[in-house]
Amino acid sequence: MFREKIKVFDCTIRDGGLINNHDFDERFVREVYKALSAAGVDYMEAGYKNSKKLFSPKEYGKWKFCDDEIIKKVIDGIESKTKISVMVDIGRVDMDDVKPKSESPVDMIRVATYVKDIDKAIYMVNQFADKGYETTVNIMAISRALDNELNEALHQLEEESKAQVIYIVDSFGALYQESTEFLVKKFKAILKTKEVGMHAHNNQQLGFGNTIEAIIHDANYVDGTIYGIGRAAGNCPLELLIGFLKNPKYDIRPILDLISKEFIPLRGKIEWGYIIPYAITGILDKHPKAAMALRNSHKKEDYREFYDTMVSEDLEQ
Amino acid sequence: MFREKIKVFDCTIRDGGLINNHDFDERFVREVYKALSAAGVDYMEAGYKNSKKLFSPKEYGKWKFCDDEIIKKVIDGIESKTKISVMVDIGRVDMDDVKPKSESPVDMIRVATYVKDIDKAIYMVNQFADKGYETTVNIMAISRALDNELNEALHQLEEESKAQVIYIVDSFGALYQESTEFLVKKFKAILKTKEVGMHAHNNQQLGFGNTIEAIIHDANYVDGTIYGIGRAAGNCPLELLIGFLKNPKYDIRPILDLISKEFIPLRGKIEWGYIIPYAITGILDKHPKAAMALRNSHKKEDYREFYDTMVSEDLEQ
Repeated sequence: MFREKIKVFDCTIRDGGLINNHDFDERFVREVYKALSAAGVDYMEAGYKNSKKLFSPKEYGKWKFCDDEIIKKVIDGIESKTKISVMVDIGRVDMDDVKPKSESPVDMIRVATYVKDIDKAIYMVNQFADKGYETTVNIMAISRALDNELNEALHQLEEESKAQVIYIVDSFGALYQESTEFLVKKFKAILKTKEVGMHAHNNQQLGFGNTIEAIIHDANYVDGTIYGIGRAAGNCPLELLIGFLKNPKYDIRPILDLISKEFIPLRGKIEWGYIIPYAITGILDKHPKAAMALRNSHKKEDYREFYDTMVSEDLEQ
Repeated sequence: MFREKIKVFDCTIRDGGLINNHDFDERFVREVYKALSAAGVDYMEAGYKNSKKLFSPKEYGKWKFCDDEIIKKVIDGIESKTKISVMVDIGRVDMDDVKPKSESPVDMIRVATYVKDIDKAIYMVNQFADKGYETTVNIMAISRALDNELNEALHQLEEESKAQVIYIVDSFGALYQESTEFLVKKFKAILKTKEVGMHAHNNQQLGFGNTIEAIIHDANYVDGTIYGIGRAAGNCPLELLIGFLKNPKYDIRPILDLISKEFIPLRGKIEWGYIIPYAITGILDKHPKAAMALRNSHKKEDYREFYDTMVSEDLEQ
């Protein structure tokens, strides 16, 4: 029996954009949208909505800005029920760039935040809601949130924000099932009028397992990316999620096709997935940036030394 | 707080042997044993104990036979508390090859069986126990076991067998956490005098997650392989298990070192891990053999067609 409320949310272009400077060509994004639409996936996130005053379009690809016109062009003529989402970071969006929903191809705006910035996130997300968008607040680095601060943030989100969904974001791929269960139960207990979402990273090959765990405890918004693409270890693989869910509206075959044709060749050019330095940062509950630097150095396979360095860093704090 | 009863069991050479004809050279096996010993891993499985009357040593490597003399040579002089195990299949062992424990470097013998062969497995495992070995019975293809037959088998194992540990073997990598929980609880309820073990395959990237799930519900014997090596999608990665467990006797660093030096080069020569056709057989709860054949054909990346073929096979039964 399936739970109709479960929504599958694809972050391929947005999270994948973090490893190619948001520079996917329009043909590729169109192919992704076509496959997601045929597969019955509920949302596709196209990228970030960043201010061009802060980042130069000469230095970044178009999915760092997600102009409405480009989104319109890319999805034009494709039969689809897949909604479009964009993500915003605190302090990086030019609110004037965000037109009312009625004038935009975007359906949903997701605000990424740390617990400490929750007031700013609420202030922003309410404006997007007032413009007519579906909205979420995604709480990053949740594995390092102090319990009293997280509780306060969740109460504020419940009482003050218009966001429909609040996400658990395991930025470091550090959660095990027991902590996932703890967090989803806490979110559900406080956020009585909202849905809970799960965005899992795959450092310890737990992206899919933790997402199932979140579903078991009633999270209804679940993120994935095709073939697990994403920064560092990447994300919960969308194809596994589609294979797991029982709702007959989902069809894994267009995704399988797309992996064969686009993602196998792409994986030969850019790196993501289960790679030991990312597993190490996950085990140690750390941001993957040091591991990403290692992978770009001549010491890329010196795992033991990297582990010792990471552990020393902690001991010397 | 850690659970002292948890034992980490490495199957690198045995399960890895399934993809190289059991033909690891002695230097490699010695390096693995050295690293496992330094890491505090409790058991290392060296391979299968097969009869040379059934399989020719000209066609298979030495780890398909696991002669005592070769094991002795490979572990000689290495300081270690890591015990040695060998696996036997029903009907493939020459009982005369198995000396009394007091004359052998082997500590444990594990009997692999399907539910239907449980009487044969009990007959065999009791003989090994009588020869002085630690023993286990490993129930393969558990995702396809009919509940009444499994229940009967477990009652027989509890009442008639001398095995200390009974393993859940998710041969097809088809279990999700909920079924893992169901099975471990069933095993624990019936097997009142025995320990429960978990041997997970990684088709859907759930090898580690399901092993954690089994630990949560009181399985104390957990299998892994270094860098997840093993047939098809491979196994629960041992390094992740060591990173997860809290017992201070375990040290991940020798394993990280060994992955850098031996397993990264090896993975360039032989294939295992998260590969879509193996994910497909996992999702469909099937033996990976069709996917292995696909990977040796010119259609190795034709995932959609492979999926359709697998599904048709079921529909036409």
